[in-house]
Amino acid sequence: MSGKPQDAEVIGYLQKLSNWGRWGHDDRLGTLNLVTDDVRRAAAGTVRDGTAVSLSFDMDPQNPDPLGHGTVIQRYMELNEVEALFGRAGRFDAVREYVGLIAHGSPTHLDGLAHFSWDGKNYNGFDMSDVRTVGGATKLSVHHAAQGIITRGVLLDIPALHGVPWLEPGHAINPDELAAAEERQGVTVRAGDALFVRTGNFARTAAEGPHPDDHAAGLSAATLPFLRERDVALLSTDGQQEVSPAESADFDLRMPIHVVGLVALGLWLVDNAALDELARTCQEKNRWEFLLSLVPWRMIGVTSSAVNPVAVF
Amino acid sequence: MSGKPQDAEVIGYLQKLSNWGRWGHDDRLGTLNLVTDDVRRAAAGTVRDGTAVSLSFDMDPQNPDPLGHGTVIQRYMELNEVEALFGRAGRFDAVREYVGLIAHGSPTHLDGLAHFSWDGKNYNGFDMSDVRTVGGATKLSVHHAAQGIITRGVLLDIPALHGVPWLEPGHAINPDELAAAEERQGVTVRAGDALFVRTGNFARTAAEGPHPDDHAAGLSAATLPFLRERDVALLSTDGQQEVSPAESADFDLRMPIHVVGLVALGLWLVDNAALDELARTCQEKNRWEFLLSLVPWRMIGVTSSAVNPVAVF
Amino acid sequence: MSGKPQDAEVIGYLQKLSNWGRWGHDDRLGTLNLVTDDVRRAAAGTVRDGTAVSLSFDMDPQNPDPLGHGTVIQRYMELNEVEALFGRAGRFDAVREYVGLIAHGSPTHLDGLAHFSWDGKNYNGFDMSDVRTVGGATKLSVHHAAQGIITRGVLLDIPALHGVPWLEPGHAINPDELAAAEERQGVTVRAGDALFVRTGNFARTAAEGPHPDDHAAGLSAATLPFLRERDVALLSTDGQQEVSPAESADFDLRMPIHVVGLVALGLWLVDNAALDELARTCQEKNRWEFLLSLVPWRMIGVTSSAVNPVAVF
Amino acid sequence: MSGKPQDAEVIGYLQKLSNWGRWGHDDRLGTLNLVTDDVRRAAAGTVRDGTAVSLSFDMDPQNPDPLGHGTVIQRYMELNEVEALFGRAGRFDAVREYVGLIAHGSPTHLDGLAHFSWDGKNYNGFDMSDVRTVGGATKLSVHHAAQGIITRGVLLDIPALHGVPWLEPGHAINPDELAAAEERQGVTVRAGDALFVRTGNFARTAAEGPHPDDHAAGLSAATLPFLRERDVALLSTDGQQEVSPAESADFDLRMPIHVVGLVALGLWLVDNAALDELARTCQEKNRWEFLLSLVPWRMIGVTSSAVNPVAVF
Repeated sequence: MSGKPQDAEVIGYLQKLSNWGRWGHDDRLGTLNLVTDDVRRAAAGTVRDGTAVSLSFDMDPQNPDPLGHGTVIQRYMELNEVEALFGRAGRFDAVREYVGLIAHGSPTHLDGLAHFSWDGKNYNGFDMSDVRTVGGATKLSVHHAAQGIITRGVLLDIPALHGVPWLEPGHAINPDELAAAEERQGVTVRAGDALFVRTGNFARTAAEGPHPDDHAAGLSAATLPFLRERDVALLSTDGQQEVSPAESADFDLRMPIHVVGLVALGLWLVDNAALDELARTCQEKNRWEFLLSLVPWRMIGVTSSAVNPVAVF
Repeated sequence: MSGKPQDAEVIGYLQKLSNWGRWGHDDRLGTLNLVTDDVRRAAAGTVRDGTAVSLSFDMDPQNPDPLGHGTVIQRYMELNEVEALFGRAGRFDAVREYVGLIAHGSPTHLDGLAHFSWDGKNYNGFDMSDVRTVGGATKLSVHHAAQGIITRGVLLDIPALHGVPWLEPGHAINPDELAAAEERQGVTVRAGDALFVRTGNFARTAAEGPHPDDHAAGLSAATLPFLRERDVALLSTDGQQEVSPAESADFDLRMPIHVVGLVALGLWLVDNAALDELARTCQEKNRWEFLLSLVPWRMIGVTSSAVNPVAVF
Repeated sequence: MSGKPQDAEVIGYLQKLSNWGRWGHDDRLGTLNLVTDDVRRAAAGTVRDGTAVSLSFDMDPQNPDPLGHGTVIQRYMELNEVEALFGRAGRFDAVREYVGLIAHGSPTHLDGLAHFSWDGKNYNGFDMSDVRTVGGATKLSVHHAAQGIITRGVLLDIPALHGVPWLEPGHAINPDELAAAEERQGVTVRAGDALFVRTGNFARTAAEGPHPDDHAAGLSAATLPFLRERDVALLSTDGQQEVSPAESADFDLRMPIHVVGLVALGLWLVDNAALDELARTCQEKNRWEFLLSLVPWRMIGVTSSAVNPVAVF
Repeated sequence: MSGKPQDAEVIGYLQKLSNWGRWGHDDRLGTLNLVTDDVRRAAAGTVRDGTAVSLSFDMDPQNPDPLGHGTVIQRYMELNEVEALFGRAGRFDAVREYVGLIAHGSPTHLDGLAHFSWDGKNYNGFDMSDVRTVGGATKLSVHHAAQGIITRGVLLDIPALHGVPWLEPGHAINPDELAAAEERQGVTVRAGDALFVRTGNFARTAAEGPHPDDHAAGLSAATLPFLRERDVALLSTDGQQEVSPAESADFDLRMPIHVVGLVALGLWLVDNAALDELARTCQEKNRWEFLLSLVPWRMIGVTSSAVNPVAVF
């Protein structure tokens, strides 16, 4: 089950692992359908002591793109609103701000289902041309996730499995490692879970600086069947999901988790999660499940949202 | 205890109800200090069936300012990212978007503690000049709420108390009505709660159109001692908190909940919540408490966040 | 020669009046090729007394869209730059601003050649798909007009021809009126000219308010052969060029000046020029030609520029 | 007259060279008052052959800040406007774009009179607090230059004076060099002129790369009396005006041309002009004067404008 998958196999996943039609031909939610009331109820039931851990980094308009991904973060303040609105100053005053950002990139962000396409199609067969410049993502907008993603979260800590602080750049996590981490941690990923897979990428960068070629540890495409079988509702890593350099020399397969995950599975992704404090907390408590609360923007037509997923133990 | 409070009394609240120094002289969190681990644990314990209800409206870039508050919502798409990034097209493709918005205004949004000042001071004595155009809110930024606001939510439905679908514009909710609603509903607001007070403003507007002078039901300044005594962590209404027209002729007192709440209590506010479906759900289940999950932007220096608070029952 | 042109005739203009290939198959400038050094020299030679008149309205971020065309104008100030940049205040200080705008719409603005397409083609046969979300207008960007549009300007004042302060909404200016105005004013439009045709639309709106159906005076499609024969380099009106309501019931022909002008002729357009003060000045001086100075943004990839054309007499 | 000026002398310029009150106590135009009709007429009279040269660089949203000055340049396209507006496609189509930029920084840009302050005051004694976040520059906005800056331009080429392709970084141009360049070129700077002083900074950077400490040739503060005596209306260099490193160790005097020029003289500045092609053209024609056409944004409240000054010979 290890070893990097063949290109044909990965391309085959697009059919084999597909969730198209599973929740109806007009479904907009993909794997969020797996977060049922029962799943949410059980997730709340995992809370023991109420400790909360943020899985997001700060967004800083004065350092908008620490990872170099073309991110925009702007924040322009308007001061002295009272005089501006009422033509006179008072004892009270107010401020507000314009915020401009491109969340896809450096921030901890959610990828909605319209973010990626394959052969011109998004999840569930919607056409990529349904994403329009004026109307935005007209079919698979993030605002459909209006109930948020409140579910059980599970952390699989792969560096801990190997007894190292972080995985080396280029390490491709395979499904055996996911299974071994489950075994070691005494937790089993199940339908509707938000799965966080820790690589230690950001811990490594903090200690050793950025990799010269931007290489990073990440998931092998071989984990896709695992994600589909377990019916994961949301996948997140401390990085961009995929291992870098890519496992395949085929240009089209350089981002297989994004392509197969978003397009075929309808699997929502969170890139660049902050998992180091989470891992420490899980380790201390020896508990690898938690209530995950992630509520994206409710903005019509977007394919992303800057998010702050919070874990409650 | 009813009747509109005297101006001197309201101004007195700024001292009398003050939380300045209560959590240390450098505290940035105000009433979010009340959301302890125990409070979060207990909140999770309110979940029975897992039903989730969004308390937010959609933000629509094509209709950004339905309430006429000067809101900006922009969404500009970038298509065909693969060709743009790699200089060649492939079988996969990606899109992203720039989003620009002013959340203070029409959207369902969180007011952070630096949003309002009185006599040049923000909550805890920080100076309003600590909000800078370049650095933003340097002391009381919303990003300090990194753990989110995950706590018990309580709805007090004042129209239901009176057996009407909505309160008339200009109806000032007084503390007696809050207490009567608690009694009627069999729920008691306690420390760390997120309190949602329903006026029915949006139901009324949907049925009858906007009020010509923008009048609306809202809280009387007389409710401020209640909010402080009960140690509410977050306050929200389906409107702008205060009753309109203002109870006081004094210009400085036209927004007493914002002024006393944000500045003196350090009380976080959510304006323009969607409470009608929440009220129906509470009524059906005859349960007025729920797990409230609200996670704002983790952006340095901002005084607002567009939010989608989600209630889980 | 009067009377509204038949639809087939207008569609025929796309071929008959075409400048495609006239200045080479890779030409990006269209009618700006007509502004030769000689034309510029002669234009400078029209200056007699040095009076300057602006042909633009102000853009106001606090009233961005007076004509209701979806215009965005944002201006966000950053104050106290010295402290922000150097970490300390000094005796000197500086401010700067972020400006965001959509020029197509209410402002006085230039339409570049990539703004309109017909059957998927822009001017000179470039494909409309050469306008990309990431790269912008890759072939016919406004920045190609790097030398500006400095040429002879000519005003034809049609209301003055008829002895009225403004034309009624729906008045379609035909080529006979253009010729009659030339005759009356003693001026002849020639190759390389910037032609300003006054309707009095804004004078009418100022006096009588906006037309309920947004009707306005404007050019008949029948003027297109005149524009081509005279080899006008730039066309501008105090409005949106075309008469409204449209002369044709054919959806595709509702904006014939834009379509035929931009796509077939490669004719640059300025919408919403301020021509009333210009007309008064011309009348006073009894001079209808002037040095026209219009320098658009030199920004790669745009199809518009907010402009302030200035006439020097 | 050479040698760097003493700090006290430069500070003295703020009084000694002041134009405050010269054109009335409410004057908003400063040295643009010097561009009279006669000046414009004479400027038009300098045109001989009609050659036009742009003095601006392109602004490129994909490389917005080549000089590293914090510039923002955004361009977001909206395609298929016809379908978006009318709900149906046609044979014609249109595009538009949102443009966002901070012109102060890398682009060729105009500094308006509210850009800099000294001891809390802008030009003519207006208070720097008259620049507001909501209203912008309420007194000295760039839109007051509605007639544009159409005047005689003069180039003084200092590297050519010294027979070198560019001045070395740190070279402070003194008034003797300006006078010597006038003599050599046979031109005399006079009232109302737009003066362009070439350093060769960009030619040097193109040949040798950016200076490690960002040092550059520029004007000595000692040139300020020259600028005032000659009554220059606009000053521009191929750089940021001042020599770098600064001539003075006094923090407050690191930008004397900006401070004394904008605040005391009311002198409009253009930073980062492209002067190399201009210099070649002047040399070829042995003519150092030209018609300068520069028309800034007519936007209320701004302190900057991206500009493309065009020289016509």
